[in-house]
Amino acid sequence: MPLSTSELLHQLQWRYAVKKFDSTRKISATNWQVLEDALVLTPSSYGLQPWQFLMVQNLGLRQKLKSASWNQAQVEDCSHFVVFAALQSLDEAYIDRFADYTASVRHVPVEKIQGYIQMMKGDLIKGPRSREIHEWATRQAYIALGNLMTSAAVLGIDTCPMEGIEPVKYDEILQLNTTPYRTVVACAVGYRHADDAYAKAAKVRFPKDQILRTLS
Amino acid sequence: MPLSTSELLHQLQWRYAVKKFDSTRKISATNWQVLEDALVLTPSSYGLQPWQFLMVQNLGLRQKLKSASWNQAQVEDCSHFVVFAALQSLDEAYIDRFADYTASVRHVPVEKIQGYIQMMKGDLIKGPRSREIHEWATRQAYIALGNLMTSAAVLGIDTCPMEGIEPVKYDEILQLNTTPYRTVVACAVGYRHADDAYAKAAKVRFPKDQILRTLS
Repeated sequence: MPLSTSELLHQLQWRYAVKKFDSTRKISATNWQVLEDALVLTPSSYGLQPWQFLMVQNLGLRQKLKSASWNQAQVEDCSHFVVFAALQSLDEAYIDRFADYTASVRHVPVEKIQGYIQMMKGDLIKGPRSREIHEWATRQAYIALGNLMTSAAVLGIDTCPMEGIEPVKYDEILQLNTTPYRTVVACAVGYRHADDAYAKAAKVRFPKDQILRTLS
Repeated sequence: MPLSTSELLHQLQWRYAVKKFDSTRKISATNWQVLEDALVLTPSSYGLQPWQFLMVQNLGLRQKLKSASWNQAQVEDCSHFVVFAALQSLDEAYIDRFADYTASVRHVPVEKIQGYIQMMKGDLIKGPRSREIHEWATRQAYIALGNLMTSAAVLGIDTCPMEGIEPVKYDEILQLNTTPYRTVVACAVGYRHADDAYAKAAKVRFPKDQILRTLS
C-alpha cells in the first residue's frame, strides 16, 4: 500500500473547509503541477471529460470573483483558485472527436470502437440523458472536485470547496459565455492560516449507522 | 507529506475503471472499515451529508442489481458494492436536526449558530436551490464518489464507477422508496482480475491545454 490506512484517515480527518488561508504561503510549482495532473486524471462518464478547469491566478480576476462569491476571503487569500466549468451541451462532433482521439492514443482503428461510440451517442445524444447534459457534466465535475480535495489532503495541502458563488457572474468575469462551458463550482487551494479557528472545530458527521447501511 | 507526489500520480495512473474483478479476492475487514470511514468523512455542502451509502454484500440482491445494470459483471464479481443514494427533498426539520447535532458535537448552544442555520434555510428551503434539492444532493454524492475512488487508489484498491444503472429499479430492489433517499450512482470496489485487458489500455485524457487553462 502506497499510503497506510491510518495515514489516509489521519489526512481526511486533518482536512476541513479552510475559512482563512495563509496568503503568504504558496504551493510550490512542482506540487501544483501534480495537483493539475491529478485533476486531468479524474475519471468521468465514458471518459468524456466534459469539463474545463480554470486556474485563476490573476489578482484582478480574483478580486472580481470574490465579489461574486459573497466576498469570501478565500478567493483572494488562497494560493491557487480553481473554477470548475462543465459542458452546457453535447453534440455528435464532440463524441466523434473524443473517439478519434481515443483511437489514436490506443493505436486502434476507430472502426474497432464503433460499439462504444454508438453506446455513448445512444445514451447522451439520443437517449433521455440528452435532456440533462449540463447536469450530467456537472456531476462529473463534482467527481473532479472530490478527487482534488482528497489528492490535496494526502499531500498535506488544504482546500475549501466553494458552492456559494454566483455562476452567471463567474461566467461573465471569466468570459466563459463564448465557450461551451459554464461555471459550476470552485475550490480554493493553499495552506491554512495558523489563526483559522475552524481548524480546531470538531468535525460533524452523523453517526455511521445513520448514513451507511450494510445489506448482508 | 504523508504521500509523495510521485506516489500519488502513480496511483492515479494505476487506477482505471475495472471491467473484470477477481471475485476470489476480498478487501480485508480492516481496509473496508477505513474506506467506510473515508466515505463518512466526505465534505458536503454546509456539512449536511444529504446522502446514504448502501454496502450491498447480499448475493441475492447483487444478482438483482446486476440485472438492473445492463448485466455488468462487476456488480457480482467485486469484493464490495456501494450504492450512493441522495436525498430527494429537504425540510426544515432535517436542517434543525443537523444544527442540534452540530451544536452538541461542538459543545455550543444552538443559539450560537443561528446565522449558519438561517443561511442554510435561506438557501435550501426558501431560495432558488430549493427547487433542485435532489440535484444538489446528487452532486454531493458525486464528491463522495470521487473521494472513494481516490482514497481506494492510494490504498492500492480498485474501483469501477457505475452510472450505467437503472436507478428506479435499484430503488425498488433496495426498498429505498419508503426512505427520503434515491439511488444516483454506484461503485464496485475490489481487486482487478489478472485477465482484465482494460488494465493495459492506454489512459485517454485530452491534452492538458484543452481542458485546463491558467489565467495569470
